[in-house]
Amino acid sequence: MGYSVAIVGATGAVGRCMLALLETAELPIDRLRLLSSARSAGKKLLFKGQDVTVEETTEKSFEHIDIALFSAGAAVSARFASCAVQAGAVVIDNTSYFRQHEAVPLVVPEVNGHALADHQGIISCPNCSTIQMMMALEPIRQKWGLKRIIVSTYQAVSGAGQSAVDEAVSEFKQVLNDGLAPRDTKAAVLPVSGGKKHYPIAFNALPQIDVFTENGYTFEEMKMTRETKKIMEDDSIAVSATCVRVPVLYAHSESVYIETAKEAPIDEVKAAIAAFPGTVLEDDPDKQLYPQAVFTAGRKETLVGRVRKDLDQPNGIHMWVVADNVIKGAAWNSIQIALSLHQNDFIRPNRE
Amino acid sequence: MGYSVAIVGATGAVGRCMLALLETAELPIDRLRLLSSARSAGKKLLFKGQDVTVEETTEKSFEHIDIALFSAGAAVSARFASCAVQAGAVVIDNTSYFRQHEAVPLVVPEVNGHALADHQGIISCPNCSTIQMMMALEPIRQKWGLKRIIVSTYQAVSGAGQSAVDEAVSEFKQVLNDGLAPRDTKAAVLPVSGGKKHYPIAFNALPQIDVFTENGYTFEEMKMTRETKKIMEDDSIAVSATCVRVPVLYAHSESVYIETAKEAPIDEVKAAIAAFPGTVLEDDPDKQLYPQAVFTAGRKETLVGRVRKDLDQPNGIHMWVVADNVIKGAAWNSIQIALSLHQNDFIRPNRE
Repeated sequence: MGYSVAIVGATGAVGRCMLALLETAELPIDRLRLLSSARSAGKKLLFKGQDVTVEETTEKSFEHIDIALFSAGAAVSARFASCAVQAGAVVIDNTSYFRQHEAVPLVVPEVNGHALADHQGIISCPNCSTIQMMMALEPIRQKWGLKRIIVSTYQAVSGAGQSAVDEAVSEFKQVLNDGLAPRDTKAAVLPVSGGKKHYPIAFNALPQIDVFTENGYTFEEMKMTRETKKIMEDDSIAVSATCVRVPVLYAHSESVYIETAKEAPIDEVKAAIAAFPGTVLEDDPDKQLYPQAVFTAGRKETLVGRVRKDLDQPNGIHMWVVADNVIKGAAWNSIQIALSLHQNDFIRPNRE
Repeated sequence: MGYSVAIVGATGAVGRCMLALLETAELPIDRLRLLSSARSAGKKLLFKGQDVTVEETTEKSFEHIDIALFSAGAAVSARFASCAVQAGAVVIDNTSYFRQHEAVPLVVPEVNGHALADHQGIISCPNCSTIQMMMALEPIRQKWGLKRIIVSTYQAVSGAGQSAVDEAVSEFKQVLNDGLAPRDTKAAVLPVSGGKKHYPIAFNALPQIDVFTENGYTFEEMKMTRETKKIMEDDSIAVSATCVRVPVLYAHSESVYIETAKEAPIDEVKAAIAAFPGTVLEDDPDKQLYPQAVFTAGRKETLVGRVRKDLDQPNGIHMWVVADNVIKGAAWNSIQIALSLHQNDFIRPNRE
């Protein structure tokens, strides 16, 4: 007696990753429906050795679906999530569309899984850069409280989709094989697909992810601020972010500074991080051991290292946080939400 | 009536850059001596259309030299700088060796050029990552004071020398042309040449620059802390840094957070930055205008953008600072020191 599961955006990088993770996840699945735009419909994707044909997403795609995993952009969620809910499915949405809706829990299962109990049909998966920061900071917040966060990110190109990865690879080849200067490579995707200006990412660092808001911060930066407050259920936590795209394909890195409410002994902070489920402490300067993007890509865990006291502020702690943005930052966190709903019996059966 | 100038480390990346910059700098030069290790001696480098043969550095290399520009590593400065001073030259040292010596001014000419008046034969050029941060923050410190700095860097590979640049290029080619996973590329230089462990930089972010110190910070990070206090002549400024190597070849980027002593209107902060000599404000979110490494490489200026208020701390300001680490971060700053010594008549003539 398994679930009927739909993946909306199945042909995208996150959708494909969800499909791969569902093969081994402990979620009983009777039926899998792969949905996409009209353009990708008809493609076949492999699930447990069998071809599954991708179908175009329509209002009627969600009949008898129990769990609908959305990862096809905010516009698709805006259009189809309510259809899925009306058809009786639980929607787990990986886009930004519902994240700030009051009735929608925003969940990192290890951090605020309890919020799932209140779901009303839609659950939001946070932004990739927020998820891994929460995984690093929740063990600290639980014991010593959290007053403020200053974070600078080193985000992978895959966060902007496969077209950005293709563009990065193409630019690097233009520089390395054709002798172009990095500034002369042609960019058409980054920093923001559909934006007015595009800049190369090869051998560059782009201090813009998503569009700018009125206050001079980008939407990506404001996501980190707003989502942290919602997930940790504390509007008093001060969060200011600087989000930067770097020439890394997979796994985001973050330089995180926090101030705790109570002074926290650094050894106890490290022990709390190491003990937190899903978070791995990798921190030994003597052995040059710290998390790195290339070794974190492909993993489900969030890795934390370079944990050390601020040189002046007694309650200040610096750390380096790395996670695979497509896995823990999107696909795996969404599937963990589904697993948690299943384990807690929060999914209504949706059969005739 | 020009100077006799020696460049120690003439065949290195910074030495060659010094040579190029001296061609057009307004420093009268009668005689140029290019010095190197025994290994590079005999090479010929072009200066103003003429071949100059590189000679091995010895205790006797500095006879009749007026200005000796050192950029061949701390060990070479340790061995030969005093010979140069004893021979009557002014030493401008681009290594870390003398930076914290009390009798040695540590100078960014636009920021603390006045310190040159007290020189006793040796002047230190700060670390590249410090220089550009000083160029961005001095105009703010002058008007509103500076209480603390939290900085996360995005440093170019060229900061670790030409061998690191060659290694990065080789790794990228292994990934892009030979199909290797980034984690499987062979590294032998980064993060620290001669270190126990080496990690790839292609598609990676390495949170280690220079070796670790006892307190969990790297030497690079502690350089930013100590040098800031010395240059700004204020030990009370709190500075904590996280220094990270990214797959960029030229120009360091920095995400800088500061707290000023007095609250600073953000428009006035931008105006002060724009008015500061050598610093360029490039900041217009509506036009997606912000400094980028690939467009800053090759320039002498320090570029500042993304200037904005912290979301919670009234005296908090975030910004993005980019400069060419080989030019303003090393060669140009050293030559600016020479120019300033010349303009202020701080160079003793050293003739028979």
